[in-house]
Amino acid sequence: MTDFEATRAMFHLPDGVIYLDGNSLGPLPVAAQSRVASMMRDEWGDMLITGWNRAGWMAQPMALGDRIARLIGAEPGHVVLGDTLSVKVYQALASALRMTDRKVILSDSGNFPSDLYMAEGLIRMLGQGHELRVVAPEEVEAAIDETVAVTLITEVDYRTGRKHDMAVLTARAQAAGVLTIWDLAHSAGALAVDVAGAGADFAVGCTYKYLNGGPGAPAFIYVAPRHADQVVPALSGWLGHEVPFAFDRDYRPAGGIERMRVGTPSVIQMASLDAALDIWDGVDMEDLRARSIALCDLFIAEVEAATNLVLASPRDGAQRGSQVSFRHAEGYAIMQALIARGVVGDFRAPDILRFGFTPLYIGEADVRQAAAILADVMHTASWDRPEFHRRQAVT
Amino acid sequence: MTDFEATRAMFHLPDGVIYLDGNSLGPLPVAAQSRVASMMRDEWGDMLITGWNRAGWMAQPMALGDRIARLIGAEPGHVVLGDTLSVKVYQALASALRMTDRKVILSDSGNFPSDLYMAEGLIRMLGQGHELRVVAPEEVEAAIDETVAVTLITEVDYRTGRKHDMAVLTARAQAAGVLTIWDLAHSAGALAVDVAGAGADFAVGCTYKYLNGGPGAPAFIYVAPRHADQVVPALSGWLGHEVPFAFDRDYRPAGGIERMRVGTPSVIQMASLDAALDIWDGVDMEDLRARSIALCDLFIAEVEAATNLVLASPRDGAQRGSQVSFRHAEGYAIMQALIARGVVGDFRAPDILRFGFTPLYIGEADVRQAAAILADVMHTASWDRPEFHRRQAVT
Repeated sequence: MTDFEATRAMFHLPDGVIYLDGNSLGPLPVAAQSRVASMMRDEWGDMLITGWNRAGWMAQPMALGDRIARLIGAEPGHVVLGDTLSVKVYQALASALRMTDRKVILSDSGNFPSDLYMAEGLIRMLGQGHELRVVAPEEVEAAIDETVAVTLITEVDYRTGRKHDMAVLTARAQAAGVLTIWDLAHSAGALAVDVAGAGADFAVGCTYKYLNGGPGAPAFIYVAPRHADQVVPALSGWLGHEVPFAFDRDYRPAGGIERMRVGTPSVIQMASLDAALDIWDGVDMEDLRARSIALCDLFIAEVEAATNLVLASPRDGAQRGSQVSFRHAEGYAIMQALIARGVVGDFRAPDILRFGFTPLYIGEADVRQAAAILADVMHTASWDRPEFHRRQAVT
Repeated sequence: MTDFEATRAMFHLPDGVIYLDGNSLGPLPVAAQSRVASMMRDEWGDMLITGWNRAGWMAQPMALGDRIARLIGAEPGHVVLGDTLSVKVYQALASALRMTDRKVILSDSGNFPSDLYMAEGLIRMLGQGHELRVVAPEEVEAAIDETVAVTLITEVDYRTGRKHDMAVLTARAQAAGVLTIWDLAHSAGALAVDVAGAGADFAVGCTYKYLNGGPGAPAFIYVAPRHADQVVPALSGWLGHEVPFAFDRDYRPAGGIERMRVGTPSVIQMASLDAALDIWDGVDMEDLRARSIALCDLFIAEVEAATNLVLASPRDGAQRGSQVSFRHAEGYAIMQALIARGVVGDFRAPDILRFGFTPLYIGEADVRQAAAILADVMHTASWDRPEFHRRQAVT
């Protein structure tokens, strides 16, 4: 059994705060501080340029990829770290479109906007009549047909927590000759993922949410082994070259997933992420999932018993990621008041209050206390003060 | 006058090492350690998600851009940090090609391979008959004609240190209706750059070489104010959106250079870079350039007086960046022997020994000592041992 008291102790959690926003930015792993400090002093400081080999910096995007592979059910050696999630979406999509003559990218209105923006930009640049077809989440399955080139779907909806069935949609796509790109931003570290079992063609994700890598931690990309030596990289950077340090005039892609590397990896961020991934070594993903559902179910029950907030997430835990969302027209002000009381969730326009439940450091007592404070905020209308109605750029 | 004793004291330089590889990876600024530690503890650790606003993380790519703008002669508000240099090259090139009906990208054989690889990848993806035309460095000026869409030129050659005349080439390009992209990887922090004065259309660069931001520090991009509100971003990520946190369905580019932002910035790397940029506050770029040329001239004179190494860099300091290169058929082994003696330069295939002279922390005594050790290595043939002939992935 996973020891969640032990994992909780591995995080720095400020006094007086119940942090229910780990689905946006995971908290600081205690060990990340010393890991980064020693990377800076002992590696960068003392090894200087030789750190690329001696400290393993150059190999780290693959080494960390293997650690993430376990969490998303990928084959070892088929995940690599780098860049941001938006860039990884672009790479996957550009490579997928070269594998088919079809022109339609299928996505849904629950996808994170940046995925759609990147697809728009790619289509505009290609100028070859591609189309971004966006349907409602519940219409995705029916919309997968022989006209579709590739699906670009985020497994868990960033606002509502609604979870697609990756296995079902991927099977349907394969039957229709459609390629699949799965965005695991709200899945990796949130629930058990099985990209290989589902037969996904590409998967991408970020590491600063449930994986706790820190703000700006690098993204990851997976390409199924059956495609890994064939995909044509759109962003053909030198670190994806077969022999980067030969400084050849012409590009020749590296074998396998390394061709999805582009430029110099963010070594300081990776040191932090490496420490964060240590926490997962003792975590069983089935335990994590069971606890996540229990915490979310408890929060829904407590909040619904004490307030008139309207559940925006699926009631069935099997249909949800690791977050719970409620709707309220004054959601922004309510969230500000909650944060002032030490319960940190976040707000997503136009009316969504989001709460992430991350079993590594959130427990039942946190859930009960957060629900009680939320109820108190609602009942005393303590959110209805001018200072809670001023919007800022990032909430 | 710039106080170079003071700037030297701001770096961690290991005992017994003369570091002549700051043109590849700058050394650790002492203050970067505490800056990163406090960013992690006080910002990420204690502010959690609110750090994006309260600690200014979201605004930092523009704030750091302004600090770099001064060093490259750009207008304030027109440089932004993010991604890697290869990605920034791609963005600049993709945007430039949309501004013209011409199809030729002109570059030279002294360009860094990744710039050429990214151009190849873009051309392949566009599939619209674009051509990458690569000429010898000395032929660039004559090759700029009405057939060329855009020049993609690195100002300072990464192997030889040969410097193009940015003002002359840009003026010629403008006269021929050709757009210009300047790669400042070996210029920013190495010499006085004046992108606005030259009339450059785009400039890109990295911050882990002469700017000492640390391994994986983010890249930067400049778009001339006359284009900044018109360029179409190829990588249309959410942080380049006019209102990222409205989560609109459709992409609308932000005004100005912010549209070149893509995804979540690497906040830990930026903390390190911010501390590194503090060092530049007291530095006059003309002082830096004069000292750089003096150090390089001295090294050339000392090495040529004592060895038979063949100079690969221009002899005239005005034609060079801030590095000196020599050729030798056994360059790799010689460099390994030198590194074993504490003089850290690097090797670039097939036969180049590179030495970077970075006035912020290298002085005349270092230069004389490095030259003396190099002469000793050559005279005693101490490089001609088996252990110095084994090549590694990264040198």
